[in-house]
Amino acid sequence: MEFDHTAVPSSDIAESVEWYCSKLGAEVIYQDASWAFLNVGGTKLALVTPSQHPPHVAVRVTEGELAEASRAAKVAIDVHRDGTRGIYIYDPFGNAVELICYPAGETIYATGRPGKVGQ
Amino acid sequence: MEFDHTAVPSSDIAESVEWYCSKLGAEVIYQDASWAFLNVGGTKLALVTPSQHPPHVAVRVTEGELAEASRAAKVAIDVHRDGTRGIYIYDPFGNAVELICYPAGETIYATGRPGKVGQ
Repeated sequence: MEFDHTAVPSSDIAESVEWYCSKLGAEVIYQDASWAFLNVGGTKLALVTPSQHPPHVAVRVTEGELAEASRAAKVAIDVHRDGTRGIYIYDPFGNAVELICYPAGETIYATGRPGKVGQ
Repeated sequence: MEFDHTAVPSSDIAESVEWYCSKLGAEVIYQDASWAFLNVGGTKLALVTPSQHPPHVAVRVTEGELAEASRAAKVAIDVHRDGTRGIYIYDPFGNAVELICYPAGETIYATGRPGKVGQ
């Protein structure tokens, strides 16, 4: 299990991207009007629209681990727009933790469409 | 500038530590009754008491960068119990970002007292 990213809420993705790039030297991995993925000092930071995703931390799991966790938590696996799949589980104080899987060859990061898209 | 950690709130540090260790295979870097530092899949996760620290992401800066940011933001530098120093700045939607500095030789991580302490 490998740490994947932290996600923080934003009501204006472009404005948040500008802030993280100018203040923290972030680099854009992916950006559209509803979310963005940044590289902040070597770790991924997601900017998410609160109505779509809760703030969370995400750890990367295999397809097998995700399937097992989905069964254990009785939560259906979400397939995201970027090709990743995941479920949210919650710690004892309600903090969301995403278990995320990057199916080989199925994400936008593996299909030659990295970078700033859809702006 | 290097990503340092993500901090999530907890009202019972021991209970949260147990959850992150059992569910995500986290390892304890430091733990006492008021906060903890975990290694979650290669990245540090802090568990913090909400009255002491906001949820945040933290990036590691040099002493010079911290001093400059402190002057620019007009925010005094906090010296923490573990020997680190930092300030919080806030993104356009109120998410806290800590700029944290580990002065050489002055933190508990550099003085032979790592591990589970104070429980």
